[in-house]
Amino acid sequence: VTAAEQRGGEGRTAAIVGLGLMGGSVARDLAAAGVRVLGHDRDRAVLRRAMEAGIVAAPLGRRLDGIARAHWLILAVPVDVAPVVLAAALPWSSGLRLITDVGSTKRGIVETAERLGCATRFIGAHPLAGDHRAGWQASRSGMFDGSRVFLCPAAGAGPAALDEARRLWRLCGAATEVLGAEAHDERVAWLSHLPQLLSTALALTLRSAGVAAGQPGRGGRDMIRLAGGSSRVWTGILLENADMLAPAIARFRDRLADLESALAAGRGPPLQRLLQDAASWADSG
Amino acid sequence: VTAAEQRGGEGRTAAIVGLGLMGGSVARDLAAAGVRVLGHDRDRAVLRRAMEAGIVAAPLGRRLDGIARAHWLILAVPVDVAPVVLAAALPWSSGLRLITDVGSTKRGIVETAERLGCATRFIGAHPLAGDHRAGWQASRSGMFDGSRVFLCPAAGAGPAALDEARRLWRLCGAATEVLGAEAHDERVAWLSHLPQLLSTALALTLRSAGVAAGQPGRGGRDMIRLAGGSSRVWTGILLENADMLAPAIARFRDRLADLESALAAGRGPPLQRLLQDAASWADSG
Repeated sequence: VTAAEQRGGEGRTAAIVGLGLMGGSVARDLAAAGVRVLGHDRDRAVLRRAMEAGIVAAPLGRRLDGIARAHWLILAVPVDVAPVVLAAALPWSSGLRLITDVGSTKRGIVETAERLGCATRFIGAHPLAGDHRAGWQASRSGMFDGSRVFLCPAAGAGPAALDEARRLWRLCGAATEVLGAEAHDERVAWLSHLPQLLSTALALTLRSAGVAAGQPGRGGRDMIRLAGGSSRVWTGILLENADMLAPAIARFRDRLADLESALAAGRGPPLQRLLQDAASWADSG
Repeated sequence: VTAAEQRGGEGRTAAIVGLGLMGGSVARDLAAAGVRVLGHDRDRAVLRRAMEAGIVAAPLGRRLDGIARAHWLILAVPVDVAPVVLAAALPWSSGLRLITDVGSTKRGIVETAERLGCATRFIGAHPLAGDHRAGWQASRSGMFDGSRVFLCPAAGAGPAALDEARRLWRLCGAATEVLGAEAHDERVAWLSHLPQLLSTALALTLRSAGVAAGQPGRGGRDMIRLAGGSSRVWTGILLENADMLAPAIARFRDRLADLESALAAGRGPPLQRLLQDAASWADSG
């Protein structure tokens, strides 16, 4: 029994905009926990499938007016679309106790919430979980179980909204950690966006060298898996966080140059020292 | 039932020098298939454990003289040690039908076999399987099941030796592919050594940025897993293949620079085009 399979969400209604990998997985966990889920997706076939699966109880409607019947609003659309959806949702938001999202960058959406005047109820969220596949068909229950979720409250967000956000993610089996949007974006530039970019660069390298994607062994496949992620979703994330990502890329270039120098020197000890440093660090995780 | 669990190795005796991840895993599969396994490891405690586990039937002896009783000799030591072991094994090699290895580079050991005059029976081997962990304690039966093994015959190697090599790997459940040592080393520079080096560079980057190895999410952890591999083993591999690796690193730098330019331009379409190219390629694997 995962945390999501325990009940505990009765009495709450969640409005989820975007039923892709993240929104769909949140919807599954919340529905399993007894939360009433209202949903919207720009792809009407996806919305229909989510309702047929018994996950989404009712549609939010094309104008999103169903939000007026919810306690929680969860924006689960690409980070460059979320501000637009938030603005569109505002007319129906007066009864909401929590407005949140699931995007991988937080400065943009938090600033938007503050500018639009809904900061007191806005707690941005970023679950460190997911999959390289995208869409409702990739969503699954339990995807957040045991994972960490960063919570980034807008300036002036109340403790009640934070409690609601913690309750939401507890129902999904995740542990939450509160930090500011700026600190968040810097941290994930290293933890998540740099690895994503390097996987993409490796995929482009092998592609341009005429290697077939099925050729690498297990280790190589691990390294190109992230590159298979949604280009639509990642374009927004990487562009929004380009300023935080730049120093991470620069530092990576330096470390790669260290390895190249040791290789070019052709002697074992300097190279082995670097490999040993990396291995000790990796094994400490 | 994996291929290794079927019998079919009766009547063969294998001498395995080095009972680490690779040698230990080969030993387990061969023993399970009915091959009599004689073994040696510089760590006497490892040899003792392999015998206590019923995998190694008898030691090869400190001078490796037990090789005289075997049909197959398998060198399973780091690639920079394998030539030395091969030379030490030669006095006992007259009855061998196959001399092989499991190293990730093939030019060095194949040239050594040719120079030492045992080319007719030498078929180098490189299984595209493994683990980021090292040593006998990480070895396991079935590790090669369903994986690919490159076979690189020395100049003048006979068809009988090739048949023996194919039989050996069939007993381990692996599929074999024959190619020249030079072509092999070039191919694995891209498929395996470049990903390994990038994982190491990422680990060094995060380490120097003060990130703890346990902090990244699932995707980031996939990207640093290879870095945890044995620095002893990988130093030899990367140094031996440095010439083939250099153009792969250079091409990677170019692709990373393409991504950085698109990021710096700050517009979606050029970046998304690159991410889409990478994703389509990765998803085709």
